[in-house]
Amino acid sequence: MAVNTIKIRYAEMKKLLRSLLSKYGFSEGKAEVCAEVITQSTCDGVVSHGLARVPRLVRQVLEGGIDIHAEPELVRQSGASEYWDGKHGIGIWNAVHATERVTTLALEHGLALVSLRNNSHWMRAGSYGWQAADRGCALICWTNTIPNMPPWDSDKPLIGNNPLVIAVPNPDGHLVLDMAMSQFSFGKLDLYRREGAELPVPGGFDRNGTPTSNPAEILETGLPLPAGYWKGSALTVILDILTASLAEGSATAGISAVENETCQTFIAVAMNNAQITHTQKLVRQLAAQFAGAAGPAGKTPRYPGQNIPDLRKENLKKGIPVPAALWEKVNSL
Amino acid sequence: MAVNTIKIRYAEMKKLLRSLLSKYGFSEGKAEVCAEVITQSTCDGVVSHGLARVPRLVRQVLEGGIDIHAEPELVRQSGASEYWDGKHGIGIWNAVHATERVTTLALEHGLALVSLRNNSHWMRAGSYGWQAADRGCALICWTNTIPNMPPWDSDKPLIGNNPLVIAVPNPDGHLVLDMAMSQFSFGKLDLYRREGAELPVPGGFDRNGTPTSNPAEILETGLPLPAGYWKGSALTVILDILTASLAEGSATAGISAVENETCQTFIAVAMNNAQITHTQKLVRQLAAQFAGAAGPAGKTPRYPGQNIPDLRKENLKKGIPVPAALWEKVNSL
Repeated sequence: MAVNTIKIRYAEMKKLLRSLLSKYGFSEGKAEVCAEVITQSTCDGVVSHGLARVPRLVRQVLEGGIDIHAEPELVRQSGASEYWDGKHGIGIWNAVHATERVTTLALEHGLALVSLRNNSHWMRAGSYGWQAADRGCALICWTNTIPNMPPWDSDKPLIGNNPLVIAVPNPDGHLVLDMAMSQFSFGKLDLYRREGAELPVPGGFDRNGTPTSNPAEILETGLPLPAGYWKGSALTVILDILTASLAEGSATAGISAVENETCQTFIAVAMNNAQITHTQKLVRQLAAQFAGAAGPAGKTPRYPGQNIPDLRKENLKKGIPVPAALWEKVNSL
Repeated sequence: MAVNTIKIRYAEMKKLLRSLLSKYGFSEGKAEVCAEVITQSTCDGVVSHGLARVPRLVRQVLEGGIDIHAEPELVRQSGASEYWDGKHGIGIWNAVHATERVTTLALEHGLALVSLRNNSHWMRAGSYGWQAADRGCALICWTNTIPNMPPWDSDKPLIGNNPLVIAVPNPDGHLVLDMAMSQFSFGKLDLYRREGAELPVPGGFDRNGTPTSNPAEILETGLPLPAGYWKGSALTVILDILTASLAEGSATAGISAVENETCQTFIAVAMNNAQITHTQKLVRQLAAQFAGAAGPAGKTPRYPGQNIPDLRKENLKKGIPVPAALWEKVNSL
């Protein structure tokens, strides 16, 4: 069943979100920043972690899980490393602040680290990669999550799908990787399910613990497959322990004990990438190789973020495509 | 066909390697360090990137691809970041030096970055994770490689399988992730092929560009599958560009033009992990969860590096298992 899609102007979406968040008590500054990040994510094609998460954000605010008045607090500082506490505040607001801090420090020191414990959901991970790259910094950042994926050799959802972001600034368009550790995000699984389609590769386990490409079965068991099987499982475990260790925050096991996923730990390492001309040369060389390397299916390989500049242009011109039902729902909040 | 395995004492293997490398002109210091790293890798069960690479190392030295007299040279320095040139020297020697530098800087500054361009093959990536963790530092490091894997949507081997290492020091045994970006290493594919076994999951493409679990076909096409399909492909591309950018070194596309893979770029970010008691608590919590979470096949999930302490103890006591033919070959060099 195809989803009925409508197109909404960037300014219109941002305006609606700003007044919606203001209505629920966000300060003017917080409403502005969150509306901008959510609209931009949606404009970049990531509806699942943009507009589609707004109803859940509002619900978490209403239930008191997120403290909309909290401001991040500096816990300790050492050289170019800063350790913050997000105080269960607004995930986007905290993450934008942490990214601002880590890039400011990196521009000054060449290299910096900022962590932020007790954060609520930061929505689209890639947002912070774009933010850093726009400031001329390369960034590696990730967060842990609630348990939502089984480790390899288990059928119990004990680990998170900890999204990892790596960004490299580039004059022709930044490279930004934004990947969760599951082969498919829950949003993608739901999309396939609603369209009645099979996944192109196995994406999780069925009731018998057998890998399956049926999205409905995976959503039912809640057991998505780690990307690369044992590899994605191992990567997610070590990202979790590393971030929780450095930030003296909660690992995924600790987040499970707390409601509303407001104890996630964010970490970012930023590097001042002053070699921008060299980067441009490397990326052009890569893009030229990729342009001539289409596979049997006729598709051309792309580097992470390569499609974004064109997509942004298109969506700014013609409006941002979103499911009609979702737009209606957000309007009704 | 099962491989005939013999067991060699740690001291005996190290002694043979030290005298072998000395015979081929390695200085006393370099022969000692390289023999130690190769023996330790083999003792940790990574024969493919330990003893099994020795014949190739000797060949590269004989052919002049590796300059055994080169010493790494500091190109530029800024705060806690250092940029080195490996001068096409011995990969292990250079990588041990870079890891020593980055951990020394991290212990002083809290956070540090060292890159090293023009390096030859560093053998087992995980070695440097263990080295850093033994010094109390967390480490994220990786190198790019020659082109040996197709990007997603292509059937041409244009990208590398860039191994990524993440290490977290822990009093009960360090956590060390050591993963190449292909679903299976070439060493693993060869092992399955020699044993006449199918891979447990698809590991590459056959002649028609179709994913296959037949290791012989994958070795023939030279098209291993990225771990997590499009995800491993994207991750490898951005790791490549990031490291080559920061180090002003070669990206994989540039390495292909040079023989003997001596232009790889290594990069490491180290963090002084002073929160060691917190780490220990987190890891014990995780290990306890995992111990009770065996899947349908009866295996228990493990964190990266969890099996190493026991394996080391066993191999130190009973000897390191290696294929008999390999031991004979190394003795004949």
